[in-house]
Amino acid sequence: MATISDVARLAGLSVSTVSRVINNNPHVIPKKRKLIEDAMQQLGYVPRPAARQLRGSSTNTMAVTIPRIVNPFFSYLVDAIERTLDEAGYTTIIVQTFSRPEEELTALKMLRNQQVDGVILCSIENPWSVIQPYLQYGRIVLVNEYLADVPVPIIRANQYQGFYNATEFLLQHGYTKLAYATGRKQVALAENGVNFDSDRFSGFQSALNSIGKVRFNPHWLFTNAHTATDGKLILQKIIASPDKPDAILAGSDEVALGLLEEAQAQGVQIPAQLAVLGVDDQPSSSFLKIPLTTIRQPVDQMGSAAAKAMVAALQDQAVTLPQIFPLEIVKRASV
Amino acid sequence: MATISDVARLAGLSVSTVSRVINNNPHVIPKKRKLIEDAMQQLGYVPRPAARQLRGSSTNTMAVTIPRIVNPFFSYLVDAIERTLDEAGYTTIIVQTFSRPEEELTALKMLRNQQVDGVILCSIENPWSVIQPYLQYGRIVLVNEYLADVPVPIIRANQYQGFYNATEFLLQHGYTKLAYATGRKQVALAENGVNFDSDRFSGFQSALNSIGKVRFNPHWLFTNAHTATDGKLILQKIIASPDKPDAILAGSDEVALGLLEEAQAQGVQIPAQLAVLGVDDQPSSSFLKIPLTTIRQPVDQMGSAAAKAMVAALQDQAVTLPQIFPLEIVKRASV
Repeated sequence: MATISDVARLAGLSVSTVSRVINNNPHVIPKKRKLIEDAMQQLGYVPRPAARQLRGSSTNTMAVTIPRIVNPFFSYLVDAIERTLDEAGYTTIIVQTFSRPEEELTALKMLRNQQVDGVILCSIENPWSVIQPYLQYGRIVLVNEYLADVPVPIIRANQYQGFYNATEFLLQHGYTKLAYATGRKQVALAENGVNFDSDRFSGFQSALNSIGKVRFNPHWLFTNAHTATDGKLILQKIIASPDKPDAILAGSDEVALGLLEEAQAQGVQIPAQLAVLGVDDQPSSSFLKIPLTTIRQPVDQMGSAAAKAMVAALQDQAVTLPQIFPLEIVKRASV
Repeated sequence: MATISDVARLAGLSVSTVSRVINNNPHVIPKKRKLIEDAMQQLGYVPRPAARQLRGSSTNTMAVTIPRIVNPFFSYLVDAIERTLDEAGYTTIIVQTFSRPEEELTALKMLRNQQVDGVILCSIENPWSVIQPYLQYGRIVLVNEYLADVPVPIIRANQYQGFYNATEFLLQHGYTKLAYATGRKQVALAENGVNFDSDRFSGFQSALNSIGKVRFNPHWLFTNAHTATDGKLILQKIIASPDKPDAILAGSDEVALGLLEEAQAQGVQIPAQLAVLGVDDQPSSSFLKIPLTTIRQPVDQMGSAAAKAMVAALQDQAVTLPQIFPLEIVKRASV
């Protein structure tokens, strides 16, 4: 596995400078810091926390953060993480963040207080500058959501390609007026490779522009969409609008369920008048009145890989980073 | 609110004897211990943990245990608990037990280590003799599952009456050959009022015997049934058996989903050949190909009541115990 000397050699800097970056010492100029972080990422080097080295003991307990426990994607993700950690002899505690920065800090402070050996973040609620200092107390692994250029193991799906392919799939079926729903407060207008949200939205927009030769109509953007009830409200808004979309990327199977239910209640034909595309492939999605076409996320593999990356990091083993899993379109009746 | 003196007076014993019981001192004869525990329960007296009194501070953090995060009943229950605790200023951490005693101890040890102020148990994996000593370190509240005659707040649904009514409902619809599925390793052959499992099964058996004038056929008992996949396997077993049931209490909507899916795959008519009754009323259950008749549990009210009982106990306020909520049959197409 890579050592601190390997990082120093690749970066062309001294071991002591690398050490200062690892220990979050502010007296490193940004250019050198960038060189070292790049080298660490390239080598898959994850710094061993100083506090842990000194103590020489561990809690055998891990914290996992999820935004919403009632979203089956996250309950299955954390279950897969926990089963793998369990096999490795670790106990898991789960912290629900409700997408709030202060709840994420609850988990990170457990790391600082030596109540857990590591934290696996399934979503990210704070900027990296807030999260990074906690690396001195233990391990951090990112799964599902991620940040670019951070020196921790990242396990995620290829949201850009998945959403590009899904949009292409809708366009190939003759839909051109595409709506977009997301659980976020806003869409991230950034390139592929910046974060989870920008990957999804830029994959969608790229396919729309390059294949469909159309631009996204911002009136067809629906944010803060989490539940089936949110899906019902979106369907009502679509009905009430003068210029209606002919398909919607629902962002989750939960929101898609509400869209389908309300469409039936309102007499909107699925998929003739509106195609609905979910994300997740929940257990019930194949057996709905209108079987749901959806984007399947490899939740078991991602959860297991994240747990294994955490265990490897705690044992100071090199982790190949990042691990990126493909998304898959499951074709049923709603498109 | 009741004081330790009130308990002593009602029990006809000294305050010091009550104190010994509260502090789990073994030098109290069983008969006196019983008198004191009865008096505590009758008065709704919850002992204030000695350790907490001495420290005079709190973590403002609560642990909640659930057996399986991927069972939506528990994810919604813990969500309701957490939302109410959040309003009261408490942070919640969730511990999944996988129905294992040692995982429940993980949460209880957090109480002992002063990492949390209280533990809310949504299922019970250890005998009371193992749980009780932890009462000296903080508060414990039971929700959903319960034990008879224990001196802590209990919030639960009336499983006996709910299952009695559901069985009566099936009998009224002409079904007499009733199968029973449960997530447990065995059914609890005990009277109403002993615990969650015995309440469900005795409610079922009472209605079967007294209204249906039939006895339960033990060949139609299916245990360890948790997931949709388990439901599919049960349907296959039913098809293969020489004497087939005409209805099944599935134990959960998850298992019911698998039964419905596999019935469709195998050409078994629902409800003509087999009626399927779920428990929980999950968001998708009304919109399945065969809309599911199910027993709705008041999950939001129970979760919120449990959180309020915990907060009241931590503030040394009296809690009216136990709080028992009714179950409700939601009539759809699968019966």
